[in-house]
Amino acid sequence: MCRWLAYRGPAISLDTLVMKPEHSLVAQSFNAQRNIIAVNGDGFGVGWYGENRYPGVFRDTAPAWHDENLRHLTAQIRSSLFFAHVRASSGPDVQRTNCHPFQYENWLFQHNGAIGGFGRVKRTLDQAIDAELYTQLRGSTDSERMFFLALTFGLREDPPAALRRMVAFVEQTCSNAGVAEPSRMTIAVSDGVRLFALRYSSSRNSQTLYHSRNIHALREVGGSGEELSPDAVIVLSEPLDNVSEHWEEIPESTLLVIEPDGIEAMAFEPAA
Amino acid sequence: MCRWLAYRGPAISLDTLVMKPEHSLVAQSFNAQRNIIAVNGDGFGVGWYGENRYPGVFRDTAPAWHDENLRHLTAQIRSSLFFAHVRASSGPDVQRTNCHPFQYENWLFQHNGAIGGFGRVKRTLDQAIDAELYTQLRGSTDSERMFFLALTFGLREDPPAALRRMVAFVEQTCSNAGVAEPSRMTIAVSDGVRLFALRYSSSRNSQTLYHSRNIHALREVGGSGEELSPDAVIVLSEPLDNVSEHWEEIPESTLLVIEPDGIEAMAFEPAA
Amino acid sequence: MCRWLAYRGPAISLDTLVMKPEHSLVAQSFNAQRNIIAVNGDGFGVGWYGENRYPGVFRDTAPAWHDENLRHLTAQIRSSLFFAHVRASSGPDVQRTNCHPFQYENWLFQHNGAIGGFGRVKRTLDQAIDAELYTQLRGSTDSERMFFLALTFGLREDPPAALRRMVAFVEQTCSNAGVAEPSRMTIAVSDGVRLFALRYSSSRNSQTLYHSRNIHALREVGGSGEELSPDAVIVLSEPLDNVSEHWEEIPESTLLVIEPDGIEAMAFEPAA
Amino acid sequence: MCRWLAYRGPAISLDTLVMKPEHSLVAQSFNAQRNIIAVNGDGFGVGWYGENRYPGVFRDTAPAWHDENLRHLTAQIRSSLFFAHVRASSGPDVQRTNCHPFQYENWLFQHNGAIGGFGRVKRTLDQAIDAELYTQLRGSTDSERMFFLALTFGLREDPPAALRRMVAFVEQTCSNAGVAEPSRMTIAVSDGVRLFALRYSSSRNSQTLYHSRNIHALREVGGSGEELSPDAVIVLSEPLDNVSEHWEEIPESTLLVIEPDGIEAMAFEPAA
Repeated sequence: MCRWLAYRGPAISLDTLVMKPEHSLVAQSFNAQRNIIAVNGDGFGVGWYGENRYPGVFRDTAPAWHDENLRHLTAQIRSSLFFAHVRASSGPDVQRTNCHPFQYENWLFQHNGAIGGFGRVKRTLDQAIDAELYTQLRGSTDSERMFFLALTFGLREDPPAALRRMVAFVEQTCSNAGVAEPSRMTIAVSDGVRLFALRYSSSRNSQTLYHSRNIHALREVGGSGEELSPDAVIVLSEPLDNVSEHWEEIPESTLLVIEPDGIEAMAFEPAA
Repeated sequence: MCRWLAYRGPAISLDTLVMKPEHSLVAQSFNAQRNIIAVNGDGFGVGWYGENRYPGVFRDTAPAWHDENLRHLTAQIRSSLFFAHVRASSGPDVQRTNCHPFQYENWLFQHNGAIGGFGRVKRTLDQAIDAELYTQLRGSTDSERMFFLALTFGLREDPPAALRRMVAFVEQTCSNAGVAEPSRMTIAVSDGVRLFALRYSSSRNSQTLYHSRNIHALREVGGSGEELSPDAVIVLSEPLDNVSEHWEEIPESTLLVIEPDGIEAMAFEPAA
Repeated sequence: MCRWLAYRGPAISLDTLVMKPEHSLVAQSFNAQRNIIAVNGDGFGVGWYGENRYPGVFRDTAPAWHDENLRHLTAQIRSSLFFAHVRASSGPDVQRTNCHPFQYENWLFQHNGAIGGFGRVKRTLDQAIDAELYTQLRGSTDSERMFFLALTFGLREDPPAALRRMVAFVEQTCSNAGVAEPSRMTIAVSDGVRLFALRYSSSRNSQTLYHSRNIHALREVGGSGEELSPDAVIVLSEPLDNVSEHWEEIPESTLLVIEPDGIEAMAFEPAA
Repeated sequence: MCRWLAYRGPAISLDTLVMKPEHSLVAQSFNAQRNIIAVNGDGFGVGWYGENRYPGVFRDTAPAWHDENLRHLTAQIRSSLFFAHVRASSGPDVQRTNCHPFQYENWLFQHNGAIGGFGRVKRTLDQAIDAELYTQLRGSTDSERMFFLALTFGLREDPPAALRRMVAFVEQTCSNAGVAEPSRMTIAVSDGVRLFALRYSSSRNSQTLYHSRNIHALREVGGSGEELSPDAVIVLSEPLDNVSEHWEEIPESTLLVIEPDGIEAMAFEPAA
């Protein structure tokens, strides 16, 4: 059970959301209250789009809360589209290649949740990954496999369709293997322009996901930090310990598409 | 606010207490309930006496709960006198040289608590450390300074007297610097034969400390692990989430001396 | 290009070979002279058989030369059969799951060399790994795959035959993929009783491998350390910077089987 | 024996000098040829001035050569004044707080060399550090002490004078302690506007230090990277394996002051 946030809007320092607020992602890593596993101490990562063709990624295996590099970097780096993630491993090793976000060319991907019975379907999932992409697979998480399967199924051409195919393939594979546990996921994925946020569970019981509705929401999170623009959107696992009216819960089985000119929510169903 | 345990008795695998029980020290690191800071994710360490002249020490900066080296080593290493510690830093950097236990020649030392207003007295404390010992000082914690001051004040010759002098010196230094916050400590220290356990606070409000009273206490902690001997003694910060009658709370201002032939509790007062 | 050693004989402290000698494995990690890549700074590991059913393993990603945990542990741990390895990555990530030795149940495995064109055959090799074993695959190296393929091909039943099949399968897969570069390997593998040491290259040009011939060889390596028994055998990548007559080079295409009652060298040819 | 570079000029990506060139600092970390200790694998760091009041710092303990975070960050971060350092420890622990550059408010400091007999004078040096600054001391190196002594002696008011006093104090302290070994240093220090580069040894035998003379020098180092401006200046330990005429060796006992409008070289003598 991890936690993540994604931001799209005028460029701000990453620490405006990641470090400074009372309920920042890093503060949440230490003492989460809404979800089950309280501690997200198994690594962290930030990914951000800057002036280069590909985004930057900084990931490490220590808990986020005392990491001075993270404090320094989020204070120095400004971005108009960035991801941040704190991890609680449910099994796979604590190593940088298992930390989110994952990057492939201009794409970033991060995930909270789990593929049910992952150990029993990992081999079949791996075999379905495109041969070219397979050489880039570096870690051992279900999350990285979901990313690479989405890439295999056309993420670069049609992201919503690729995500539908990926989830359908995961569910079919689990079903074939006789896995009873549901798969649950909240996913953020971006090509550097569009930000996609998915909330889905095969049992219709996924982790929470919220997005900001208005400038007041941003002020709640951004607290004493930099002035946030009314045009900005934040998507995150849990906005605050007490969710206010300024936040909107993303419903089950929903894909949010956040583009420069607006947000669109579409119903999400797996489809091969 | 850290947590520690110390064991003296017939040789057992370290994991019997450190890893395996439901309420093992490592389980406690993840979800402590009795003390204030819930997570002890800022490093860990074990120290053990074996066949060599000096004890072995294994310390690392990752959280203990997913560390495979710790799992392997505690399963392989047997000892009749060992320490284990999980750390929650209140400020000093997360680095191996700040992890407990600290070792000097045949001595091991570990600590939970804090010197009140440490930043304001650190320089004076450092200056009081014996010049020869000073070159061995490697980290930045108050704990290591307490150990080296105790060594300076004669730990190798008369441990109880050296601990009394050390605490008196710390309290006097804080008082001279106008520090209002109390110093609080639970300390384990050993020369490889005797195990000393101190509970003290200048405000008479130190962290909890318990020792096992009988074989039932050992069974509570040792759970499904190796058979523990009735001759063994365990001292630890918190025995279980619900302390049973098989454990005895070590009172405030008490120094426990655990020798091969018995346990002695003596009142502890600082004394220059 | 890594370096490794394996020891079989009366129990000694690991540091007798790993740390103390002037030309110890750790000293070699810092300044190798015979092979091409001079620095083995991308992690290290030791594996040893003790009193438990399964061997212990200690691996970390830092260079071996300043690692205090390694110094402590090799000084405390005694074993009559142990492996030690220092790594120079040719590509796969520097993470513990890529450090040698690899362990599976009672088996240890370590490797120096590379599968030619590994990136192009990795997916096919992975697909050939037994489904049950596949869930235990944790890293991204060619080495771990060679180990798991050997297990798949019957390492537990007939080690020489499984190694022959594994190498044949790797060569066939490379050939099918049009890989021109040769595969080269020196491998140590053990079940806790027998120690197998393989030197092989598909181009008949593998890294060097030596074994001790007599007590003088042991004294050369063990230097000022513990007294070594004439019954002990050491196998290692490079014995010393100037190889003396007390060492015997293991010829190309040779599998050494070291058992309690002697050493047997057998010609090694891949065989499906 | 470490290695470092410092850059002042129009803003460039850090990787232009740190990562990309054939003889980049990171390439040098792996295989230095001119100095005695060949491998700089004991940590690294970069410090850079950006838009904030204080510079950013990224330091880690792994070898620089395979560190993906370093690769990512130096590709994303642009700066007109930055430091980079690769470390070979001569004793103090490999931990982030011992990695260069050191930062204090708007100041950055990095060092190659050693205080002769450091262990014997450390305590006296520590005691001379300003009480306020002392609480900020975090590591155990001679380098950090030189920085804090310079701050104590007025670095913020008159950098050349403070450096002269610092070196004089170090030499006097060593002399008082009967230390025979010389102190040797090449130092880079900056307030974000001026860049100071010092080459000094009490035995007139310090490590090499060079600065670029012209655009050809920049092209030699910058290789295939970003276009470097003729206005830029690079100072570094060793420019290339074969030093060309485009580089100027900074003479012994010289302090270079690099300001936006030019470079000034002044003779440097310790002076209390």
